[in-house]
Amino acid sequence: MLVGGPASSLTDCPFSYFDGMISVAFLGLGAIGNPMARQIAQEKEQFTLAVWNRSGQKAADFAAKIGARHASTPADAASGAQFVVTCLPTSADVEALLDGPTGLESGLEDGAVLIDCTSGDPTTSKRIAVRLAKHGVGFLDAPVSGGVAGAEIGTLTVMVGGDADVLKRCMPVMEAFGEKIVHCGSVGSGHALKAVNQALLAVHIWSLGEGLAALARAGVDPAIALDVINASSGRSNSSQNLFPQRVLTRAFPRTFRLALLDKDVGIAARALRELKVPAPLIQLTAELMSMAHRELGDEADHVEAVKVIERMAGEVID
Amino acid sequence: MLVGGPASSLTDCPFSYFDGMISVAFLGLGAIGNPMARQIAQEKEQFTLAVWNRSGQKAADFAAKIGARHASTPADAASGAQFVVTCLPTSADVEALLDGPTGLESGLEDGAVLIDCTSGDPTTSKRIAVRLAKHGVGFLDAPVSGGVAGAEIGTLTVMVGGDADVLKRCMPVMEAFGEKIVHCGSVGSGHALKAVNQALLAVHIWSLGEGLAALARAGVDPAIALDVINASSGRSNSSQNLFPQRVLTRAFPRTFRLALLDKDVGIAARALRELKVPAPLIQLTAELMSMAHRELGDEADHVEAVKVIERMAGEVID
Amino acid sequence: MLVGGPASSLTDCPFSYFDGMISVAFLGLGAIGNPMARQIAQEKEQFTLAVWNRSGQKAADFAAKIGARHASTPADAASGAQFVVTCLPTSADVEALLDGPTGLESGLEDGAVLIDCTSGDPTTSKRIAVRLAKHGVGFLDAPVSGGVAGAEIGTLTVMVGGDADVLKRCMPVMEAFGEKIVHCGSVGSGHALKAVNQALLAVHIWSLGEGLAALARAGVDPAIALDVINASSGRSNSSQNLFPQRVLTRAFPRTFRLALLDKDVGIAARALRELKVPAPLIQLTAELMSMAHRELGDEADHVEAVKVIERMAGEVID
Amino acid sequence: MLVGGPASSLTDCPFSYFDGMISVAFLGLGAIGNPMARQIAQEKEQFTLAVWNRSGQKAADFAAKIGARHASTPADAASGAQFVVTCLPTSADVEALLDGPTGLESGLEDGAVLIDCTSGDPTTSKRIAVRLAKHGVGFLDAPVSGGVAGAEIGTLTVMVGGDADVLKRCMPVMEAFGEKIVHCGSVGSGHALKAVNQALLAVHIWSLGEGLAALARAGVDPAIALDVINASSGRSNSSQNLFPQRVLTRAFPRTFRLALLDKDVGIAARALRELKVPAPLIQLTAELMSMAHRELGDEADHVEAVKVIERMAGEVID
Repeated sequence: MLVGGPASSLTDCPFSYFDGMISVAFLGLGAIGNPMARQIAQEKEQFTLAVWNRSGQKAADFAAKIGARHASTPADAASGAQFVVTCLPTSADVEALLDGPTGLESGLEDGAVLIDCTSGDPTTSKRIAVRLAKHGVGFLDAPVSGGVAGAEIGTLTVMVGGDADVLKRCMPVMEAFGEKIVHCGSVGSGHALKAVNQALLAVHIWSLGEGLAALARAGVDPAIALDVINASSGRSNSSQNLFPQRVLTRAFPRTFRLALLDKDVGIAARALRELKVPAPLIQLTAELMSMAHRELGDEADHVEAVKVIERMAGEVID
Repeated sequence: MLVGGPASSLTDCPFSYFDGMISVAFLGLGAIGNPMARQIAQEKEQFTLAVWNRSGQKAADFAAKIGARHASTPADAASGAQFVVTCLPTSADVEALLDGPTGLESGLEDGAVLIDCTSGDPTTSKRIAVRLAKHGVGFLDAPVSGGVAGAEIGTLTVMVGGDADVLKRCMPVMEAFGEKIVHCGSVGSGHALKAVNQALLAVHIWSLGEGLAALARAGVDPAIALDVINASSGRSNSSQNLFPQRVLTRAFPRTFRLALLDKDVGIAARALRELKVPAPLIQLTAELMSMAHRELGDEADHVEAVKVIERMAGEVID
Repeated sequence: MLVGGPASSLTDCPFSYFDGMISVAFLGLGAIGNPMARQIAQEKEQFTLAVWNRSGQKAADFAAKIGARHASTPADAASGAQFVVTCLPTSADVEALLDGPTGLESGLEDGAVLIDCTSGDPTTSKRIAVRLAKHGVGFLDAPVSGGVAGAEIGTLTVMVGGDADVLKRCMPVMEAFGEKIVHCGSVGSGHALKAVNQALLAVHIWSLGEGLAALARAGVDPAIALDVINASSGRSNSSQNLFPQRVLTRAFPRTFRLALLDKDVGIAARALRELKVPAPLIQLTAELMSMAHRELGDEADHVEAVKVIERMAGEVID
Repeated sequence: MLVGGPASSLTDCPFSYFDGMISVAFLGLGAIGNPMARQIAQEKEQFTLAVWNRSGQKAADFAAKIGARHASTPADAASGAQFVVTCLPTSADVEALLDGPTGLESGLEDGAVLIDCTSGDPTTSKRIAVRLAKHGVGFLDAPVSGGVAGAEIGTLTVMVGGDADVLKRCMPVMEAFGEKIVHCGSVGSGHALKAVNQALLAVHIWSLGEGLAALARAGVDPAIALDVINASSGRSNSSQNLFPQRVLTRAFPRTFRLALLDKDVGIAARALRELKVPAPLIQLTAELMSMAHRELGDEADHVEAVKVIERMAGEVID
């Protein structure tokens, strides 16, 4: 499903490669990238797939088990690919991947498109787009939401920034892993929207943590408090899902690292500054995430930020 | 439905007045109080009702049209009542209503209960409870959520602080206007929970406003942004309902005044301070609501706080 | 020196006790109270002094070594006293001292004045003033600044709230320990001003800590940074005195507890809320002090709050 | 006076140009730059001076009245210059001046030094330094403090980032306009320190405004409040100078634009984020400056930010 772009029929598409197989390269086989690449690999009648990963063993395993060409370098992966998908920790990682004789830039061919599914930042994405355009290579920022679970079953939401016609050409690839493909605007707008969503997530987790810690101290059972809030105007995805499942149970499963949420909120905070939009709540939340990240370390889950609040309050939310 | 209290059957209740009619007084016929009182008035086989309002005409109209005794003073209303319900702007208003020869305190009878549905503050409620206990009068803080719409059809959520046995006795009255009656803890905990819910509402409105204003400036259509956020982890009641219905449409219906949200967040902020729970996000939000309230005046709706963000950002969310 | 009040000559004063000795009671012989009381005790030709302290040994020692009557109870101390000076941790402590058969209220005589040098809060002070006025007892809030060093040599600044004529009568006592006596306004205004000063101190310490930690991480020697700042527009008492003497040296002498600064900033924060003055910086600082206090405990010095910043920054300011 | 660098005697300096006249170019003849350039021009036995300004008339006037060569382009100014001084609004302006056939980069000669007195940002400065090093051109970031008054009499403080030996060579030029030359560290550290100083200035102005507005509302005369604060621990340059001279008098002279302070605090805020130092107070202050700047416009003086607080508080500090 394409949302927000011009109504488009892929039958209009003039590109010859729709007559045959679509050649795709996928770089970055992490927690989200791996299942995304698998969705592409599974459609063997539609796609040929090359994979590459910084730690080569992951790519070798993927190639052997799922079926794909194991590329030796980013340039090798890009060679002959109509679409190159990247899914890395940061935009800086994507930019670094372009460089050098074995880098993506030297492998990407005129007419190809780089689809960057990294939760990256708008400024770097704009710089990458300009750099690739000189070679006739298109660029879309296309971060996803839906988590590992959504990636496993191909129901991710994809937030796309870039040219509408380029997006139209990329739809077959995106539909392999995304259920809802949303055209947000020009290059960088996908990353901006993803970052704002993450900032709101961080705001909700932290403010709910503050409120529930105080209520617990006042003798109100957090389960009852959540029950009421979820029937009232203060509810959020955090109150309806994260806290009941992860905080009250003390399970705190490690599904998305606080280090990454800290990075994402930082991207939002910086983008808001560059857009000259005063945003005291989001900026303060960026500081709180930064504090919590330093305190809990790189391996903590994002919901564990609540533990910092609990420590400061001297009260456990359970 | 009673949540959070001990399993209780009203057949256990020893009070003789369950043999006959229940005598109720309702003070405060405002936007929420009026339909609540009407729910009680409608069950004419169960309740006898006296009403009182600061501006007497409202009570006279209610008495004439809906059917109730129009009490001349708070004391007159309380006289003979088993249950007195108050629904006023602030706890200070409730406390002031107790005073003097025609005040509630002089009218409330031993064994009666004051059910305070005001969105009040825990500290004042505790003081009122102590004062009434000297006369053998019970006290419950029982703020509601669900808005005017919920009050009209008797589906409010009621957050109750106070003694479980007192609550048990009050259930028939509460069930007249509430669908979900939640026992939160001791006196003040209903007010604390309501205030925290309101604080979260304010946090959500303001942070979403910040994010959408920035995205709009970056060229992302707010409708598309909300569509994505509502499919992602950053969603809240504000993103799912308030913004699509009220902000993007520029309708800003006046359903709940910003002045009252400011008051509620202030109650939460003060309660958190007294509980010694550091809460930078909620405290900062209290300041932002206070600023917005001063800027927009007493008549603005709570969602119009977004207009302050829009002005600061130089960008309209539409 | 009297600042801010009407020009006043003590020769105008009709009170007979100026013919003879002035009878003073001093309650609260802590770090500041003890040297203040000593200043009074030293002027033996002008004052007779009774002392009381919660832990009686301190008062007994004072009475024995410095020379004063050791009162057995607050009421005993107040008995016969024209002026009663209190110097306690909080206004709540002062209020509690009034109660009961041996409390201050029962001992204070018509025409006496309670001079409260506690760093207290305006709201409680107003309540105390109303309570004492019923007995014909005057009340001044009169917190001091200048620290232990200023108290030792009688050069404190005294910020006075209350009636100008009452202040005029109290001048001989105040001049025993204060060099600069400032009439700020009505009851509570001394406490308000002291609290705001403390809030500014906290703001300055914390923001300077943020800045210097970042500069240290950027490779700038904090001593050089302070040298420049102290020659520039960003200087403050904190940059000119506290940081060079206490932080860079890692001395952190315990001269004023963080617990008390946290209390003082909390008083300011609450007063600003009650005055309906939006104050995001001071309110956020109240949260930061509360966090630091919890983290460092009750015995830490106020400047040690910097250690919390250092830990979060992963950088020592030395 | 050189602070913070290695003890250095200019007699050690091997550079031949100390045998004769020193050739200097000055670009940017604004409010601060103009008097700085005049200090250089006045020492006619030591310096030959070329000047350039974006609006050429200013440079022509300077050349005619003070005596200097009026360069036609940045490249022309740099041609033959041993030292090129820039004093522009932002680092981005400096970077832009490097570009193109008439840009600084094409005019600067091997062995020359660019001394950038702009209140710029560390990141851009590092980029410029790397770019110039390829041509054998040195770079120092050297922002100043002391204001127009200090520039007029050559008593500025100069905060220098860059190589110590390069600084040594530049001392004769710097001493023409600076009294205190401080070597802060590597390239960018001068800009970082200046930005932090400005952030502290902004913190002090805003927090003092909050406090005085509240005290005024509580009936305390701001002049008395300042008198006490200035004798106490909460004093700062803002309380000792800015507020008595500019706020209480309602003079608000336009000496340094709020737009520039907003920019400076933004530089500090971004640098702190990049250094991963959580800094809630400085980050929040950046938002408040941004809000005030938008509200008051580009021409307001930095101290006029207080007017935004006064409006929010409904109270004038006078």
